[in-house]
Formats: sequence, structure tokens, C-alpha cells
Amino acid sequence: MFGATDAQPSTHPAGEADPPETGIPPEQQRDRLTALGGLAALSLDAMASVAYGPESIVLVLAAAGSYGLGFTLPVTVSIAVLLAVLVASYRQVIAAFPDGGGSYAVAKAHLGRRTALTAASSLVIDYILNVAVSVTAGVAALTSAFPGLYEQRVWLCLAVLAVVTAVNLRGIAESARWFMAPTAVFVLSILAIIVVGLFRDAPASTEAAAGHASALAGNATAVGALLLLRAFAAGCSALTGVEAVANAVPSFRTPRVKRAQHTEIALGGLLGVMLIGLAVLIGRFHLQPVEGVTVLAQLADASLGHGFGFYLVQFATVILLGLAANTSFGGLPVLLRLLARDNHLPHVFALRADHQVHRHGVLFLSLASAALLVGSGGDVNSLVPLFAIGVFVGFTICQVGMVRHWNGERGRGWQGKALLNGFGALLTGVAALVVTGTKFTEGAWGVCLALPLLVLLFEAVHRAYARIGDRLELGRVPGPVTRQRSLVVVPVTVITRLTRDALSAAVSLGDEVLAVTVVHTVPDVEDQQAAETLRRDWELWRPGVPLIEVPDGHRRLGPPLAAFVNELAAEHAYDRVTVLIPEVEPVRLWQRALQNRRGAVIDRALRRHTDAVVCRLRMRM
Amino acid sequence: MFGATDAQPSTHPAGEADPPETGIPPEQQRDRLTALGGLAALSLDAMASVAYGPESIVLVLAAAGSYGLGFTLPVTVSIAVLLAVLVASYRQVIAAFPDGGGSYAVAKAHLGRRTALTAASSLVIDYILNVAVSVTAGVAALTSAFPGLYEQRVWLCLAVLAVVTAVNLRGIAESARWFMAPTAVFVLSILAIIVVGLFRDAPASTEAAAGHASALAGNATAVGALLLLRAFAAGCSALTGVEAVANAVPSFRTPRVKRAQHTEIALGGLLGVMLIGLAVLIGRFHLQPVEGVTVLAQLADASLGHGFGFYLVQFATVILLGLAANTSFGGLPVLLRLLARDNHLPHVFALRADHQVHRHGVLFLSLASAALLVGSGGDVNSLVPLFAIGVFVGFTICQVGMVRHWNGERGRGWQGKALLNGFGALLTGVAALVVTGTKFTEGAWGVCLALPLLVLLFEAVHRAYARIGDRLELGRVPGPVTRQRSLVVVPVTVITRLTRDALSAAVSLGDEVLAVTVVHTVPDVEDQQAAETLRRDWELWRPGVPLIEVPDGHRRLGPPLAAFVNELAAEHAYDRVTVLIPEVEPVRLWQRALQNRRGAVIDRALRRHTDAVVCRLRMRM
Repeated sequence: MFGATDAQPSTHPAGEADPPETGIPPEQQRDRLTALGGLAALSLDAMASVAYGPESIVLVLAAAGSYGLGFTLPVTVSIAVLLAVLVASYRQVIAAFPDGGGSYAVAKAHLGRRTALTAASSLVIDYILNVAVSVTAGVAALTSAFPGLYEQRVWLCLAVLAVVTAVNLRGIAESARWFMAPTAVFVLSILAIIVVGLFRDAPASTEAAAGHASALAGNATAVGALLLLRAFAAGCSALTGVEAVANAVPSFRTPRVKRAQHTEIALGGLLGVMLIGLAVLIGRFHLQPVEGVTVLAQLADASLGHGFGFYLVQFATVILLGLAANTSFGGLPVLLRLLARDNHLPHVFALRADHQVHRHGVLFLSLASAALLVGSGGDVNSLVPLFAIGVFVGFTICQVGMVRHWNGERGRGWQGKALLNGFGALLTGVAALVVTGTKFTEGAWGVCLALPLLVLLFEAVHRAYARIGDRLELGRVPGPVTRQRSLVVVPVTVITRLTRDALSAAVSLGDEVLAVTVVHTVPDVEDQQAAETLRRDWELWRPGVPLIEVPDGHRRLGPPLAAFVNELAAEHAYDRVTVLIPEVEPVRLWQRALQNRRGAVIDRALRRHTDAVVCRLRMRM
Repeated sequence: MFGATDAQPSTHPAGEADPPETGIPPEQQRDRLTALGGLAALSLDAMASVAYGPESIVLVLAAAGSYGLGFTLPVTVSIAVLLAVLVASYRQVIAAFPDGGGSYAVAKAHLGRRTALTAASSLVIDYILNVAVSVTAGVAALTSAFPGLYEQRVWLCLAVLAVVTAVNLRGIAESARWFMAPTAVFVLSILAIIVVGLFRDAPASTEAAAGHASALAGNATAVGALLLLRAFAAGCSALTGVEAVANAVPSFRTPRVKRAQHTEIALGGLLGVMLIGLAVLIGRFHLQPVEGVTVLAQLADASLGHGFGFYLVQFATVILLGLAANTSFGGLPVLLRLLARDNHLPHVFALRADHQVHRHGVLFLSLASAALLVGSGGDVNSLVPLFAIGVFVGFTICQVGMVRHWNGERGRGWQGKALLNGFGALLTGVAALVVTGTKFTEGAWGVCLALPLLVLLFEAVHRAYARIGDRLELGRVPGPVTRQRSLVVVPVTVITRLTRDALSAAVSLGDEVLAVTVVHTVPDVEDQQAAETLRRDWELWRPGVPLIEVPDGHRRLGPPLAAFVNELAAEHAYDRVTVLIPEVEPVRLWQRALQNRRGAVIDRALRRHTDAVVCRLRMRM
């Protein structure tokens, strides 16, 4: 019964859930992927992070001048190590959760509800930040190519966001093909940068950086461990997206586990090569962070020269990041749906009929990220760390969950696997803590606030549904359906054809029918006259239904009627009186404004204060 | 019947209408006024216009340097003459329309509907502009006293507006007493300025103006007729508000006509004295327009010195203008109500129950004027002319109507009266044209656009109501009420206690009852399962009501149900099928979010596409 599920705990087992965190919408889950196709379709987010990952390292190290920048390579290497660990442990996740792992699923299976909800919250936050980060990074790439636009970057960001939102509201049928081309172009051009760059001794051009103020700080000669740690943590943002494959296992062609694992490894390898390659170039060309020009742009400039190649890279980056932002719009609704199905979110999000949810999710997502865009002034590097936090929380939870998993299974060589995942958990956990600690005052506090709040929200919703479920006696077979005498009340102010139709409907439905009108006892000529006229006309008409006058001294409509209905119910011991409100329903939209709100007013009052069945008879014209 | 008047032409004669344009809300209409009380209660707007009237003259003449400023007095005198004419002719309006004249009423009686609507539109525009002008003028007075605030004037304006709006949303019980004190203080302080000033040869202080850039243009020695005409037209803005008395005749104690006429004359006299007095001082002190300091402030400064007196005047002005703005909030709803009663506006505006209208009107008014405030950058002098246009249009229409009136009556000495009104019409008409012409590019075009558009709107609404009225066979006695077999359809998705209640209600109401569920034929595990479960549970339950499955291939809810209902109606030749939607109605507000929108979705679809009676059974919890 519609009303029933209206606010009623869903009875679905969450087992047959779509993978929650994948960047690809449900429809997509069905056309199966090969290892290569998967790489193209799922590596999007990971590749996109190459656009801002290295930069965030450079920015941190720049604090220690060019001496500090010398540590770019070592830091990157250690990140590559972490990457390797992550990839390895996600290989295991894939094997263990062929239905699509993802921190939410893993945590729900092994770490209990609350942890799962924490994972879910971090995912929600990530989806939002992913949009903000990708858009800003994309615009940064654009403004690096066209410095003239730098001042308008916030507006540009909002414009891009608007486009993505519009596309998603229209609901395009996405497909892997959409992603493949740009991803390929991007990857190839990055590799080109690296290869060509390695054969140069000096930058081919520094034009992009020219005319921009260098953000390089004083030239220190000592580099503290903390600085390196921060650089490491910051750089880890380059690892966002490596989980995507694990979430999308069901999308692979059988043997899906094998294929997915291959994809995961290929993804990791590719990512690692790109990161290290870029780090090498950064050192080779003694790059320095320059305001308004991304590190990637500088590298493209340095190795490909300020020509076609340079612009190609920039455009590829913009497109790729636009698509990366787009993935959130596919992913979030799926996650919300999963949460709604577990009664942690309003069921609207699980309701797929008439595409309502989708719209809800899309708008929520774009508004939230628009706020972030404006808040950050369109600056990638202030958003990236926040993004990293959520991602690492997810990573960590997922890894810990896996440790539990192996510990529970105790299959062959479980210790090794557990150790691997545990190590991964440790690294990502530390990274999360470092980023949070170092960026706390610069926005990280927001994430720390949002995470628990979301968890509390989810739990509150769950409790509410549980309560409602009890009231509805869910799962039990309800008592027999019983017929009883019915009383129908029809509110009236003047007499027209509509009045006739309404009374006819009422007598057809009810065993007893009453017409009722509210008489305002406030001394007012007009009201008196209206009441008088009605009384007279009623006499003239003689519809065979008694007209009852309910007095009210406060010019109100709803409350007196509600009170009257409750009295009736009490007197005649009806458990439900039926109230039938006749209305005119203009067909043209603007004419809707011509309706006075009486019907709505009465409906609201009755709904709040009575158990009446509220019927609205509408004469369309 | 509620639905009936829902969008149905009201049957009230507009005869027993509240006076439309008075600045005082309906409740107010009852405690009767003496001539003096009336002066205090109704002179507000007129007095307020003293705060910006003279200034607008000075600003125009300043274009011709100090030589031009020499013409301030003559221009003012001619305005005083017009004032005299207006007062005289409004004396006649009062006599002719003891129920409250006002251009709308007069025009409706003598110039036909369209002219009346033009008058009404100009009034609507005035109410909005009055708010904007009064607020900005008030803030200008404030910033003249505290130049530091000058930069924030727009924000100050919005703040003041916000306060006034809030007060009116709360719906304070206003009374003449509210107005008397500030009006009296203001008038007295102005008179003080004049008297004291007349005894000075040189300004006591020019401190207020010090430090502000003088806006005085090059020193011309010739003053064109056009300039004088423009100065005249601009200055006429000082006459806004003289009509208030004529509109509020019913508020006077008997003999109300006499009392009202006395008030009108006193008002005119007082206003004239103040205007001329100020003009004399302006000449005497060789005042020049100074940015950021109102002329009134400069005068107060010059004659009372930059001390207590000065600040008192400024504060009195601020308060008075605040109240002046407030009058619109009392007046507009009354006018809208009158228009709604004549079916020129949606009936919501005539519906007084539950204070809905009031809120509508107040919000509309404050948003519109906020737009003007921001648009004008909080500058009085760019708004005043626009204000004047509407006022003069109203004046002119009213006068012309009176000429018709006398011409119709042809009572003793009617020619004289007609001549007087005619002369008034001519003057105000010319003034209107001049202001419009000279200010066309500076906003007047907006008024010229808004006026006809409003008229068209009013007429469109009227036509729509007429059409609806026909359909409803208004005024005719409807046919007899007939009983027929009733069919009740209950949408279902799962089975709970609510399902039981709904089916029980259905069988109590209907002769025949069907439960119906929409089955999504899209291949989807979940949906299949849901349908399967429902079928099984239904068998188990055996409620004695058939369960019908309506297939749909597009994951929709509303459309398939609507189609099903229409089929049923066709097959069984019911003219109305009844659909009963069960819903859970959480009591706590935030829990409303837990409802999925199914009920609403179905309701909308049925409302749009069927004639079904839509009932919603809500289980409150």
C-alpha cells in the first residue's frame, strides 16, 4: 500500500544492492566490461587526480624553498609505495566482495552499522568534494592556458558546474565510450610529456609561467620531518579513485574477479608511472609553484613547448576533470538509494518511479559543491586536502574491515592478506590524521563536523522508521477489513454546479451526508450577508442535505472545521469521518493562481488535527 | 461551497467596499476620527513628502547654478497654487463620495472599467514606490546626521525595510495614536526651522554640508522655461498624500463629510505653509544641493545650528518616513482586496480567513520595493519622480472623473465645480507628462511599462473568472442531488495495518472496491520481488477485495494509475471514480521528509488527467 511504504522501513535485504560508490549510474551496471574497457571506464577519477596530486606536493615542499622542492621525488616514490599497497589490498577486496566492495559494504559486513555509516558519510562528503575539486582543477587547467580568464575563475567554475548539473538533470544515458576517448588522450599526453621531458636538459618554454608571480617562499636549507609528512599526506590526494574498480566488480564480464583485478593492477601501474614520471620532471626542470599556472601546465610547457601540445594537454585535462566531476552525479544517487533502502535516509531516495530521486540528488549535490566552490574562491589546493580526508577515512575503514574479514575466514595464508590490508589501513589512517591535523583550521574542521553529523542523521532516520514500522505492525498479517457506517461532510460557501456535483458524490459515498459552512461571528457586514445569502439559497435549492453552520470568532477556516469533525467523530463514534472538499482546477498553469487556497487550508488543518479522510473533488476547467 | 468560490467570480457588489487607497488597515476603519485626529492620522504621507519635495526642486534648478536656485521660491509658490486647487477639488470629491472616493472608486463610477483599472494600477505602483521613497528618504535623513553611514545606505534601506516588513507580518494593531506623536513632532520642528530661520541673516551652521562635495553645476545665467517646468513637475512630488483624506471619509465621526473637508483644508494649509517657508529659507541661505546631505538637513543646520535641534529634526524625519512607508502595507492589501472582489485579482487576496492575504500582500510589497531600493542604489531623488508619475495619473483620473460627475449631476453651480476639477486635472496631467517625458530614460519607462501591463493582467484575470463563472452556472439554482453507485480504488504496494484501515474505509464508502498496484515491467530483480511478495501476502490475507495489477514499462506511478481510473470510469459509466490514497503522516516536522512523495505524485497525476475524487487517508504518528 502506497501509504504504507510511505514512511515505512523497507523490507529489502541490502544484499542485492547496486555497488554503492561506483562513478557510473545503475543502468551502466549492466553492459559488461573487459579489463581494458574497465580501465577506460573506471580509471577516470584516478587519472583525474594526477592533475592536482603532484601539485599539492610541490606546494607543501615549496615552503622550504627550492631545497624543499628537491624532495618531490622521494615523497612521490613513497606515495607510489602506498599506491602499490592499496592496489594489492584492493585486489583482495575484489576477491572478497565480488558483488562490489566499497567501504560501506565492507564495513557493514565486518565492522557493524555505525562504522558503515561513518564510511557512508565520508563517501557522501567525497562525492561533493569530488565535484568541487574536479571542477576547480579543470578551470585551473583552463586558466593556465588562458591567463586572461584567471580573474573570472569562480564564475567559470560555477558555469562548468551549471553545465554538468543541467546535463545530469536531463538524465543522459552515459556509457563507457563517453569516458574512454578523453581518458586515453589525457593519459597518452601525460606519458608524452614525461617521455619527451626526459630527453630535454632544459625547459623548452616557460611561457605559461611567465608574467605570473612565483609563490616560492624564502630559501630554507632544512626540511623537517613534519613538512615531509605533510607533503606525503597532501600528495596522497593523487590516490583518490583507485577504489572505483573494487566498487564496480559486477560490471565486469566473467571471470569478473580476474578481469577486475587486472584492471586494478593496470590502473595502479599506470598511475604510479605517471606520478613518478612527473615528479622526476619537476625535479629536472626545477619547477616552482606559480600562482595561476598548474604544475601540470608548467610541465607540459617545459617539455612540449608552448604550442599545440601544450594546449592539447590543457584541453584534455579540462574535459577529463569535467567528466570526473560528472561521475559523482552518477555515484551519489546510487549510494543514497542504498542508504534509503536500509532506512537510513528518507525513502524518496529509494523511490525510482518518475525519476524524482535523481533530481533531488543532483540538485543537492550541485548546490553543496557550488557552496564549496564559492567558499574556496575557486582554489583547488584548498579543497584537495579536504577531499583527501574523506577518501582516506574510506580507505582505512575498508582495509580494517578486510582485516576482520580475513581474520574471520582464516583461509590459506590469511595472515599475509590481513597483514597487507592492515598495513594499508595504517598508512591511509596516518595520512588521514596528518591531513586533518595540518589542515584543521583551513576547512578540515568542516569535514570533522560533517562526518559525525551525517552519521547521527542516518541513525535518527533509522530510529524514526523503526518506530513507524512498529505502529504499522509491519510483517504481521493485519486484521480483517470491516465495513461500517460512513459519514461524509461537505464544506460549503456558495451554491453552484460544483456544489451539486460534490453533494451527489457525497451521497453516493456516504450513508449520511452533512453540508457545513463556517460563519464568522466577527461583526462584518460582508460576512453577515454571505451567510444570509447561503442560507436563503439553500432553502431555495432543497438539496436534501442539512446545512450546518459552524461559528468562528477569529476569521479562521481550518481550525473550526477540524474541531467540528472531531466532535462528530466523538458523538457518533465514527473512527473516520470523510470530508469532501470541492475545488475548481483550472487547467492553464497561470490560472492556478486564481484558486483561493481554501481547499489547501482545510486539508492542512484536517490532516494535522483529525483522522478524517480528506477527499478533494476537482472540477477541471 | 468552497471549491465554488475557489476560482469563481465573487458575487459581492463592490458598493460596500472599504475605501481602497487609505493608508490605514480595515480594522482601523471603525474607530472614528475627529478633524484633528484625522489630520494626525491621515496627513502622514503628505507631511513625509515635505522631506523630499523641496529637495527635488533644488536639484533640478541647481542645473542652472545659483542663478537657477533663485527660482526655488516662485516654483514652490506655483506648486502651492496647484496644491490649493487639489485641496479644493478634493473637498468636492469628499462631498461627492462620502463612502471614500479615491481615483479607483471615482473612475469606476464615471469613467468606465478600463480607466478605473488604470487608476488601480497607478495606485499599486504608488504603494510600492511610496515604500521605496519613504525608506530611502528616511535613510537619507539619517545619513545626513551621521555621514559615516552614507556608504552603507543601501544596506540601511534594506534593514529598515526588513523591520517594517517584519512588523507588518506580525500584524500589529495600528491606531491613529501611533502616527500622531511623530507627525506632530515633525511638523512642529519644521515650523520651528522656518520661524527661527526667518530671524537669521546668515546660516547658524553649515557643518552638515561641510566635507561633502557640492553637486552644483557651472554658473549659468539663463533659465529656460523647460527647466522651470521640470522643477515644477519634480516639486509636485511634495503633493503626494493629499488624497489620503478623501479616501478615508468613512473613518470620520459624523458629520463626516464636514470633518473630512476641514481636515483636507487644514492639511493643505499646513503643507503649503511648510513648502513656501522652506523655499524662502533656501533662498535666504543660498542653499546648494550637497551630495549626502538632504536639503532639509541643511536647513535644520542653518537655522537651528548643528546641535540638539538638528538631530531632533533628523530623527523625527526618520521615524515619520518609516511610518509613511508603513502606510503602504496597510493600504495595498485593502486595494488588492477590492480588486479581487471585482474579480480583477485572484480571490486569495479577498480571502480574509487565516490572514493569508495579508501575508501575500506584505511580502509582495516588500520584495518589490526592495528591488527598487537596490536598483536605485538607495538614492531618493531617482525614485521620487517615478513616484510622482503614478500619483499624478491618479490625481488626473480622479479630477476628470469628477468633471464627469458634475456634468452628470448638473446641480447648482456645477459648472464652477467642474471647472475647478477640470483645471486640477489639467495641471496634474501636465505635471505627469512632464515628469514622464523628462525622466523617461531614467526609470519612467518602467512605470510606463508597468501601468498597461497591470491593466492587462487585471483584465485577463477578470475574463478567466467570467469563463469559470459560466462553467459553474453561477447564480442559477443547480439541478437536484442524485445518488449513484460508487467505485473506490485503493492504490497498494505492501500490506500493513494502514492497508487494513484504508480498505475498511473504502468498503464503508464504496459499493464496489478495487485494490490496485502498479507493476514495473522493466526487468529489475527488486521490482519483481516486490510484486511477488505483495501477491503472496494478499493471498495470505484475503481482505475480500480484488487486487489488480497495472503494468507499466517506464517506472512511473501516476500516469498508469490515471489511465486505469479513466478506463474504469469509461467501462462502468461512472462519472466519478473515487481513489483513496493511504499515507503515513509523521507529526514531527522533520519526519515529514521521511514520507516518500508517492501520495503526492498520484494525487497530481489524477488531478491533472482524471475527474476522480482523490481521497487521502492519513495515519498520524
